[in-house]
Amino acid sequence: MSPVTLLASGGHEAVPHILLGLAVILLAAKAGGEVFERLSLPAVLGELVVGILLGNLGLAGVHTFDFLRAEETFVVLAEIGVVLLLFEVGLESSVKEMMAVGAPSLLVAVVGVVAPSLLGFGVSMFFHPEGSVYVHLFVGTILCATSVGITARVLQDLNGLQRRESKIILGAAVIDDVLGLVVLATVTGMIRAADSGGTLQVGEVAAIVGKAAGFLVVSVIVGLWLSPRMFRVATHLRSRGMLLAVSLAFCFALSYAAHVVGLAPIVGAFTAGLILEEVHYRSLATKENVELHHVLKPLTAMLVPVFFVLMGLKVDLRVFADPSVLGFAAVLTAVAILGKQACSLAIREKGLDRVLIGFGMIPRGEVGLIFAGIGATLVLAGEAVVSPPIFSAAVIMVMVTTLVTPSLLKRRLARSGVVRT
Amino acid sequence: MSPVTLLASGGHEAVPHILLGLAVILLAAKAGGEVFERLSLPAVLGELVVGILLGNLGLAGVHTFDFLRAEETFVVLAEIGVVLLLFEVGLESSVKEMMAVGAPSLLVAVVGVVAPSLLGFGVSMFFHPEGSVYVHLFVGTILCATSVGITARVLQDLNGLQRRESKIILGAAVIDDVLGLVVLATVTGMIRAADSGGTLQVGEVAAIVGKAAGFLVVSVIVGLWLSPRMFRVATHLRSRGMLLAVSLAFCFALSYAAHVVGLAPIVGAFTAGLILEEVHYRSLATKENVELHHVLKPLTAMLVPVFFVLMGLKVDLRVFADPSVLGFAAVLTAVAILGKQACSLAIREKGLDRVLIGFGMIPRGEVGLIFAGIGATLVLAGEAVVSPPIFSAAVIMVMVTTLVTPSLLKRRLARSGVVRT
Repeated sequence: MSPVTLLASGGHEAVPHILLGLAVILLAAKAGGEVFERLSLPAVLGELVVGILLGNLGLAGVHTFDFLRAEETFVVLAEIGVVLLLFEVGLESSVKEMMAVGAPSLLVAVVGVVAPSLLGFGVSMFFHPEGSVYVHLFVGTILCATSVGITARVLQDLNGLQRRESKIILGAAVIDDVLGLVVLATVTGMIRAADSGGTLQVGEVAAIVGKAAGFLVVSVIVGLWLSPRMFRVATHLRSRGMLLAVSLAFCFALSYAAHVVGLAPIVGAFTAGLILEEVHYRSLATKENVELHHVLKPLTAMLVPVFFVLMGLKVDLRVFADPSVLGFAAVLTAVAILGKQACSLAIREKGLDRVLIGFGMIPRGEVGLIFAGIGATLVLAGEAVVSPPIFSAAVIMVMVTTLVTPSLLKRRLARSGVVRT
Repeated sequence: MSPVTLLASGGHEAVPHILLGLAVILLAAKAGGEVFERLSLPAVLGELVVGILLGNLGLAGVHTFDFLRAEETFVVLAEIGVVLLLFEVGLESSVKEMMAVGAPSLLVAVVGVVAPSLLGFGVSMFFHPEGSVYVHLFVGTILCATSVGITARVLQDLNGLQRRESKIILGAAVIDDVLGLVVLATVTGMIRAADSGGTLQVGEVAAIVGKAAGFLVVSVIVGLWLSPRMFRVATHLRSRGMLLAVSLAFCFALSYAAHVVGLAPIVGAFTAGLILEEVHYRSLATKENVELHHVLKPLTAMLVPVFFVLMGLKVDLRVFADPSVLGFAAVLTAVAILGKQACSLAIREKGLDRVLIGFGMIPRGEVGLIFAGIGATLVLAGEAVVSPPIFSAAVIMVMVTTLVTPSLLKRRLARSGVVRT
């Protein structure tokens, strides 16, 4: 039997091929990451490019890796990986921090969400006039989230993390994550409602926004009460490995709760990370002599590459044979970059390099990919909201925005005299 | 939609319920482990008992946890967990060590595999005269492997690890693992051949044994050549997380290779662990400042409880309403214990406590469960080789053999004056 036939039987029989797939994905991801690192480019883009290559080997008549796309389990493993990734992102921020970043970060985040969304909506409408309004809304959503990891890394490398601009960017990125997830939840809710028939009333949209915001507020309040108590109990138990087990269970349970109220599981995972404070689990971590991020790292190290490679696999290079798809990708990328420049207009403080802030907000990274991936699984009137050409254009946008940021930031910092290149 | 309906659609849609299931499994496993630890019993048995409870709540009209049994993904996650577990077991042993334990350990291991297998075969034939010879063979196989973890733990607690008996037991356990896997491979191969029709010739059986032994020998030789080179290349790369990625890929690839030659993936995983020596990856581990067992631990901590809880879920307590099943479980357990006492007969050295060695070889632990689980997935003439009553009896056998060992060892050591209780 061919791997693909075997896989169709699912479960136990598919395990050997899943193990082979994991070996291939891990080695391919590392190979791609290595090449990109040596070119001074972000390693995650290397993992994505390797996925694109593996996925399009079929064009050259090589179908060896087609089973990676046929197996549903990789989708599940990739999503568990993304849930854990968002949990890690949430752990790096805290509710207190979010409250403290103040007005400039909030303004930058809001403008940085609104402007690219509107531009994305317009571009989608222009290139796909026949498409539904929900498709345009979703394209706007893909553009709204900033992945600040790349920016933070570049600023750190150039010793720019102490600048006030950097602090505003990092603060805005946290708020931006929350706003992005609320927008995602709202648009997804609207699409689900539209798909089950009936026009959408303003009241219903408000209800969806309210539910998303309500989930965040309620889970933060309940979670901040529950979390220290949960870890206090766990500290008094004799079982080993409680820190990892309790943290994972908390993250997974909140991801499920998010799903129950109609939100994406990643919203719950991010919230779980936001709620957990080191002070809650410090005594448990000390007792077990481990750090939470150290025990989470191997899990994301095994599962997150599955996500990036799988997203690459979904890119069908043949769609770019149509010049209008290439044009769409180019314009989408342009407005993704321009849209975030509106952030600089939100800043009124004297002496700040507003352009630097705009540049820092450009990269979409994994957040843009996750949103595009969710859109590809959403169905409206029997069709995927994010069609293969839109998905492929979104991947291009994610790659370009992530690639241009380091050199833009370096030039800008060099101009303002912090570094000399 | 109910969780079970949703799960049937598979992939992306099932993810939230898989996350909920993982949260339930992790918390339930820890709760069960905690109760057992407080009773000074092995924590893994607590995880198994929790699984039995969750799986049989249906008898009390509670069907909340039935979705854990319906979802194929948990089977896959559990099997990946078992593969990683056997990889860890293999890492704790080395080819050199295996070569060095010498004649007494080899004799103990061989007798400890042969005697219980024959007894198990006989018991199965007596209780299931209508059953196929392959069923009896498989019941024998389940009895053959020793899980020495419990013994090592007890001996360590009682400061008995320095005794010559302990060294013979630990040495025999490693050889026992290898022999058990060869027996499993052989019996599985015979069942597959029988299921695809035709009677089995002696030559074919020899070919299956040869293939299993050949796989071990060839992969050890090739692996010992490849492994240091593989890590030397990885040490010179810039990517981070290479130690985990390369080790996992090696383990998964060898698991797949085992499947290709008709063996269980765990045989490949164990062999991969046996091959990898710390000296091969020391410089990479030093460069990344991590230890291989530290980065593997979180993966097994998340996935192995899925296996134990799932095995518990498969135990249908209703089968014990039939007195003959209870009788079968009791006699199977008795011969599992008695069979390993034959090990003491293999020892001729003067001054050794031969009974202690026999006691030390009793526990079946996770290895017996893994073998029973594999038997439950094997099909012969349209029926599972290990039927639900046999599976449930095997779980009882695993639990009792694991439970009685600590107190037997303590009493024996107390008698010979090492500890006073």
